[in-house]
Amino acid sequence: MQNARTDKPLLRVLAGERVSVPPIWLMRQAGRYLPEYRRIREEAESFLSLCFNPRLAAEVTLQPIRRFAFDAAIVFSDILVVPHALGQRVRFEVGEGPRLDALSEPDALQRLRPTIDHAALAPVYETIAQVKSQLPLAVALVGFCGAPWTVATYMIAGRGTADQLPARLFAYQHPRAFAELIERLVDASSAYLAGQFEAGADAVQIFDTWAGILPDEEFRKWCTEPVARIVATVRSRIPEARIIGFPRGAGTRLERYLAAVPVDAIGLDWMVDLSFAREHLQKQRPIQGNLDPLALLAGGDTLDRAVDAILDAFAEGPFIFNLGHGVLPETPVAHVEQLVARVRRA
Amino acid sequence: MQNARTDKPLLRVLAGERVSVPPIWLMRQAGRYLPEYRRIREEAESFLSLCFNPRLAAEVTLQPIRRFAFDAAIVFSDILVVPHALGQRVRFEVGEGPRLDALSEPDALQRLRPTIDHAALAPVYETIAQVKSQLPLAVALVGFCGAPWTVATYMIAGRGTADQLPARLFAYQHPRAFAELIERLVDASSAYLAGQFEAGADAVQIFDTWAGILPDEEFRKWCTEPVARIVATVRSRIPEARIIGFPRGAGTRLERYLAAVPVDAIGLDWMVDLSFAREHLQKQRPIQGNLDPLALLAGGDTLDRAVDAILDAFAEGPFIFNLGHGVLPETPVAHVEQLVARVRRA
Repeated sequence: MQNARTDKPLLRVLAGERVSVPPIWLMRQAGRYLPEYRRIREEAESFLSLCFNPRLAAEVTLQPIRRFAFDAAIVFSDILVVPHALGQRVRFEVGEGPRLDALSEPDALQRLRPTIDHAALAPVYETIAQVKSQLPLAVALVGFCGAPWTVATYMIAGRGTADQLPARLFAYQHPRAFAELIERLVDASSAYLAGQFEAGADAVQIFDTWAGILPDEEFRKWCTEPVARIVATVRSRIPEARIIGFPRGAGTRLERYLAAVPVDAIGLDWMVDLSFAREHLQKQRPIQGNLDPLALLAGGDTLDRAVDAILDAFAEGPFIFNLGHGVLPETPVAHVEQLVARVRRA
Repeated sequence: MQNARTDKPLLRVLAGERVSVPPIWLMRQAGRYLPEYRRIREEAESFLSLCFNPRLAAEVTLQPIRRFAFDAAIVFSDILVVPHALGQRVRFEVGEGPRLDALSEPDALQRLRPTIDHAALAPVYETIAQVKSQLPLAVALVGFCGAPWTVATYMIAGRGTADQLPARLFAYQHPRAFAELIERLVDASSAYLAGQFEAGADAVQIFDTWAGILPDEEFRKWCTEPVARIVATVRSRIPEARIIGFPRGAGTRLERYLAAVPVDAIGLDWMVDLSFAREHLQKQRPIQGNLDPLALLAGGDTLDRAVDAILDAFAEGPFIFNLGHGVLPETPVAHVEQLVARVRRA
């Protein structure tokens, strides 16, 4: 693992190095915008059964690497495999997103398993092992999990909602039960990330999609403190673990996040001011991001200008090119080709 | 107007003064959480016909003043009266929010009126005049409009959508047509705000609910530049005009907003870090905000602690207490009483 690292541009950046051509990968790079993904998706009965089929999941993980030669593959999975492995029923309705049996009352927490069921997650570890064996040496393999707050919002509401009001209200009204849920998710996520490293992941990303909607004090309690505990726990098992934090929407709290959470790099959403990020964040830690997924969907000059603005702002420091959120399903493949060529000045 | 100002705590703060007991009002303080509002709402055929009935609109504007003795009344209306006055069909579906005939193609802009129809807005001016005549001297009357970007997102999508993707994509794909729409909204909003001042408003607020989802460069083009033009145009007609900007979700761009837009005060959403706001924003301009509406809904100790944290952070400078977003319909009236008493240390 140590030797392989020096060959992987992504890991060099995560170690703090500036790489002259920034490594690039995209959140949701394996997904519906790719015709070869849609073909595989049809073979699986459901989205979750695709996540839990190592042969198919490894295949869709590798598809965007073959097509675009990205610098990282991200294991094909979903942040909601953790509630699933805690015994909550999770399903995905076509075109509607996730549906869980909502934990709307504190007592409902008792229905969950006390610890994560590693057997339920074994297929993800197997996917990682299969991808690892097929991946070019220069390409890093990235695992991931959802941050406790973000996962909890889905566990409580049973679905995505505007501003995730149900979880925020639950946290206000049942602070002890909510703290217990977060604690279980810290333990589960730590074990899950360590398992991914042990299966072969070179780095992991912690997605806190809903970090931005928390007020000041709750941002500390439900976002930075739990994620910092995950980082510490994972590193106690995997001392060399490379971890990227992605607190989407954190805005004015990004510096606090970096101060409180010893991640190796921070992912930036498309709403972060470029000069702010360069001056206040990149001087502290490598950064990753932050192209607007809609600029990628739009293509043309819009895309070129947006890419150039990001390269101008960030390419002089340690930087990983990525989107500020996932690839949209309607994105033309040709626009992704245009993006990769532009970043690599090919 | 000059003399009256000195009696109104809200206007003293907008002039840069610190007031020992911060003035307080709440976004959506006239609304469904009040039983007396729900009774009046039943008298009107539709939400828009309530907005355009000066007798009823004045009554619901005054209801929260009678009940809570807020320091400001905000005229009961909606940001979508501007598209209505530009000739776009606007309606409100019960429980579903606004529906407009979407401007999904650039050519659709030609269906709009070139300038605003002041006759269509006359009922709002009349509401302001009626409220003004009944308002205690110490209470400020606040008018408002939506910022061009936010109004445009609804005009293009025809409704509220997740992250307002349709308008963002339209702006990328049809930048000239989109700039023309923004320009028309700048003109319309400037005329509308000036009309509200002439009818008796003491101050106005420009709501940019969707400012936060814009990337760096688009934030300048579609948020700060247009709003700055509105402020300049209104002040060319009403030199003393007091204007509050509210770029919700602006996060790391709040300082840029203050640098670019000469508003008298800035409204803060509940996601803004308190220490950041005190150090970086309140030293430049009076601030308004930023209690989480869910903390108000939750009540109890949660509410008290959240209120105290805000007072501790902001009460030493020029400050107007408000929420970080509108009152939620499910909010108990008793919690609003608790909030007002806490802020006033009554």
